[in-house]
Amino acid sequence: MTQTHETVLRSASREVVIGHGRRFCLIGERINPTGRKIFQEQLRAGDLSAIERDVKAQVEGGADVLDVNMGVPLTDEPELLAKAVQLVQTLTDLPICIDSSVVEALEAGLSVYQGRALVNSITAEDDRMEAILPLVKKYDAAVIALPNDHDEIPMEWEKRLDLVDKIVRVATEEYGIAKADLVIDPLAMPIGADTGNSLVTFEAMRQIRDRHGLNMTCGASNVSFGMPDRHTLGAAWLPMAMTAGLTSAIMDTRTPQVVEAVKAADVFLDHDEWGMAWISAHRAKAAASA
Amino acid sequence: MTQTHETVLRSASREVVIGHGRRFCLIGERINPTGRKIFQEQLRAGDLSAIERDVKAQVEGGADVLDVNMGVPLTDEPELLAKAVQLVQTLTDLPICIDSSVVEALEAGLSVYQGRALVNSITAEDDRMEAILPLVKKYDAAVIALPNDHDEIPMEWEKRLDLVDKIVRVATEEYGIAKADLVIDPLAMPIGADTGNSLVTFEAMRQIRDRHGLNMTCGASNVSFGMPDRHTLGAAWLPMAMTAGLTSAIMDTRTPQVVEAVKAADVFLDHDEWGMAWISAHRAKAAASA
Repeated sequence: MTQTHETVLRSASREVVIGHGRRFCLIGERINPTGRKIFQEQLRAGDLSAIERDVKAQVEGGADVLDVNMGVPLTDEPELLAKAVQLVQTLTDLPICIDSSVVEALEAGLSVYQGRALVNSITAEDDRMEAILPLVKKYDAAVIALPNDHDEIPMEWEKRLDLVDKIVRVATEEYGIAKADLVIDPLAMPIGADTGNSLVTFEAMRQIRDRHGLNMTCGASNVSFGMPDRHTLGAAWLPMAMTAGLTSAIMDTRTPQVVEAVKAADVFLDHDEWGMAWISAHRAKAAASA
Repeated sequence: MTQTHETVLRSASREVVIGHGRRFCLIGERINPTGRKIFQEQLRAGDLSAIERDVKAQVEGGADVLDVNMGVPLTDEPELLAKAVQLVQTLTDLPICIDSSVVEALEAGLSVYQGRALVNSITAEDDRMEAILPLVKKYDAAVIALPNDHDEIPMEWEKRLDLVDKIVRVATEEYGIAKADLVIDPLAMPIGADTGNSLVTFEAMRQIRDRHGLNMTCGASNVSFGMPDRHTLGAAWLPMAMTAGLTSAIMDTRTPQVVEAVKAADVFLDHDEWGMAWISAHRAKAAASA
């Protein structure tokens, strides 16, 4: 067996560890204005109040980490993301995943963050790694890495594995980043586009786990895009992916069906000793509805 | 890759094929009086009318095959099972899984069955194989085989694999039964007894698939025995097991949550071309509720 790695994330007062022998890490995805017009307008007007509601909902849904993205067109994204990161730290003690495609925004977020953040994300492209890995090192963060290159997403798991090899080599050898601080996104594509997509992703996961022992995450809701009954699909896909080695996901924790599927899979993967978390959650639910 | 095998079952007019590249096979488990006092009393009094209701419910729930068990204490089980098999054949064209621990009952059921039945079950014990495999051969049936010996259930996947090796050797070499007609039950144990149970079972499944390419089935509801929220557990466990190589399960198809989880996993394993079965089922459901 390959040695597996544990990724340690921290807020000012709380530590969360992602690992192959541990309960799945739920990264709440909702603090993100993408596709939400009203939220975008509020943010553009400097009104961050909706963030409070979104943080509350993700925390209540069971998030372990919160993804914070402030990608609003026609705004000063670095300033906005820094403000949002500061605000979220006053609302919760969960660690934050700082999410932007803009390098300056990532740095602005990291500069105001207290703890060990997760940076979302780099690809295997040289310019992205050159720009972002020094920040990851400087701010002692962990980073999500996608095995795609030049905007092409390889449809063969072998190619994805090659790009993971490259990312690992560059990050560890050129930037002195620990393997434990690399979280690979094995690229979950919509099943509606090609029903062979998930088989490729599952095989990529098994290979990444067996070869590198790295942690992995992905945007779980992607897989059901365009299909009916998306929650039922998500609730089946995550346990399957966990069996193949996925250790966290960026997901909307407001969907109990999907969150409960993850918790059930944790029981079967022996990540929930004696099933105590499962049984306690059931008792709490029963008490709440009594 | 090991060659995988396809198990062909037939009623008088319908064929069902179990295979690693195909949609999961749901074996409806409810035509069974175990633990059902009223049903037992009815059967003891010669009243088989409850079977009609149970067959209807399993078929409507989406069963591909029906397990028929008539294990009622203080009855002539061979006669009762033969009657039940005859009755079920008038109610549905689904193939039957003839289920008994009594050899004479299996033979009585097989003797009145029109088609290729699935026999439930043998173990790796010599006397069980000696008694039942000749019937499987004589009646051109397929058979479920459990890798346990002398009433001991091995808790190591390596031991289960050894017993599968033995079953394959004896069945093919001594009785001339095709590998395609062996369906292994990799032994799904209650997770409540030991949270490491499923990891052993999943590894046994992967090994059986990779080494022998055999089909597999199991009593899926076993895994959640004694735990709360059993349907949510079952709906996570089956997609995980399917990822590890399980190709059918003996299960109660009256639980939509579990059946839908299986159908979703079929989409992700590329067993549902273009997701058409998934989309059609959604449309049918939407139309029914409109």
